[in-house]
Amino acid sequence: MLLTALEFVGLVAFAASGALAAVRARLDVFGVVVVGLTTALGGGVIRDVLLGIHPPTTLRNWPSLAVCAGTALAVFVFHPQVARLRRGVLLADALGLGVFATAGTTIALNAGATVYAACLIGMTTGIGGGAVRDLLLREIPLVLRKEIYAVAALAGSALVAAGHAVRLPAGPVTVAAAAVVVGVRMVALWRRWNAPVARGPE
Amino acid sequence: MLLTALEFVGLVAFAASGALAAVRARLDVFGVVVVGLTTALGGGVIRDVLLGIHPPTTLRNWPSLAVCAGTALAVFVFHPQVARLRRGVLLADALGLGVFATAGTTIALNAGATVYAACLIGMTTGIGGGAVRDLLLREIPLVLRKEIYAVAALAGSALVAAGHAVRLPAGPVTVAAAAVVVGVRMVALWRRWNAPVARGPE
Amino acid sequence: MLLTALEFVGLVAFAASGALAAVRARLDVFGVVVVGLTTALGGGVIRDVLLGIHPPTTLRNWPSLAVCAGTALAVFVFHPQVARLRRGVLLADALGLGVFATAGTTIALNAGATVYAACLIGMTTGIGGGAVRDLLLREIPLVLRKEIYAVAALAGSALVAAGHAVRLPAGPVTVAAAAVVVGVRMVALWRRWNAPVARGPE
Repeated sequence: MLLTALEFVGLVAFAASGALAAVRARLDVFGVVVVGLTTALGGGVIRDVLLGIHPPTTLRNWPSLAVCAGTALAVFVFHPQVARLRRGVLLADALGLGVFATAGTTIALNAGATVYAACLIGMTTGIGGGAVRDLLLREIPLVLRKEIYAVAALAGSALVAAGHAVRLPAGPVTVAAAAVVVGVRMVALWRRWNAPVARGPE
Repeated sequence: MLLTALEFVGLVAFAASGALAAVRARLDVFGVVVVGLTTALGGGVIRDVLLGIHPPTTLRNWPSLAVCAGTALAVFVFHPQVARLRRGVLLADALGLGVFATAGTTIALNAGATVYAACLIGMTTGIGGGAVRDLLLREIPLVLRKEIYAVAALAGSALVAAGHAVRLPAGPVTVAAAAVVVGVRMVALWRRWNAPVARGPE
Repeated sequence: MLLTALEFVGLVAFAASGALAAVRARLDVFGVVVVGLTTALGGGVIRDVLLGIHPPTTLRNWPSLAVCAGTALAVFVFHPQVARLRRGVLLADALGLGVFATAGTTIALNAGATVYAACLIGMTTGIGGGAVRDLLLREIPLVLRKEIYAVAALAGSALVAAGHAVRLPAGPVTVAAAAVVVGVRMVALWRRWNAPVARGPE
């Protein structure tokens, strides 16, 4: 049940992040809803396809779709001061990343994946939605840009897997790991942590 | 059998739409065939992956591939007056959207998906091919642009699902629903129906 | 075992090709590793999803991931003279294309796919990684550009399938077919083989 609640937090966060990015790209209301839905459902669909869960869970229960569509519409109507949009996208994106990466790892472990595969599938679940959003809007995916991103997701997945290995209860571990992911992302953005670029002229 | 025939109509329409877009983008003959094939087969492959049908149906029978490759080659050789290409892409795209969305819904229902999941998978089947085509050619996908698109596909899927629920025969319902999708798309293009854009300066 | 060795050659080649392209695009070290991994693992993951192998093989054994990440890091640190990067990407890409297309065909045949589906899945395995790399870096995929590409992969797949049909041993046939793919690609690049473009003004 905690997993379901977390899943909803992640859906709302990613739907909002996708819708905000689409508003910024001046798409119309349908485009905003489609990008919001795709961003929110993308990671989970990729996860279920990799785990062989058919048809994907998120496509089977209508509440998740209603929540995502509602979030996207709300963002369309009440989108905050335009100047704050970019920061809003980044915060919502960090929340979605943390929740999906950690919940995805737990779901993969429950589905019988090895610890190793579960970490990768969890990371992919977290990264997937945002990557699809950026590809649709023709931006180079956030995951490839300057700040720590995939590494934050992988850290969260690894924490969940480690907790699983020493038999800690899955729920609290997942929440704590998600908080770590969000924290790492926020600090990376705030301190402008940059990774090195290869040297040499273009 | 009607489903098979519809599937072929959709394959030809999407292969032509992909090939026309590729000709417009000045790709060579191989690029035109690859884009035509990907556009035509993309939606069905996504559908089969979501439904857990392995390997995807369209990859298993050679006639569908031959028809798609032949269509793309024919478009390459006999592509109509250049001035009409854009309209041709849009019409072929509408036809493919309608056929794949409705036939995809029927196939999902036959595969045991719930009404709800079948609608979403049908819509995705319709949208998938064109989205892949536009991503490959680096255009913002049609589905995100100004006119009613995903909504048209969803309407067709919902009609098929409704017909299924009241036990109407699948074949005629699928054809009628596909016609509705094409009609909605054509009217939307003709009347330039636009959805609202969020207010506020960039 | 030969298949495993070939798989590793393909992983290293595609990881290097992705990392080189990412260095060229001025991504930081994490972006280089992510693009390297995605390019190397992309084709195999697509293959396993199409064949219904869950979770995908390459996500289950850590040596392949370690090799890919190590290759990408090595490319980041020791990337050769900048002027030679473009040629390096193309050569590594050809090697990965050949190995993945042919090994993918063999794996599909072993998994019980028909000859016809195995050819298509093999070709897709070869094309997949590079297409994902180019989409992530916002380039029009190599497979759509001027030189023979998908055709080379398909030729390799067809050779493997033909060898399978006449019961030749899979290993040597796969190696020979991969060499043919690399050869065709190299000659196509060297001689600047171009396919025709449709006539008519834009």
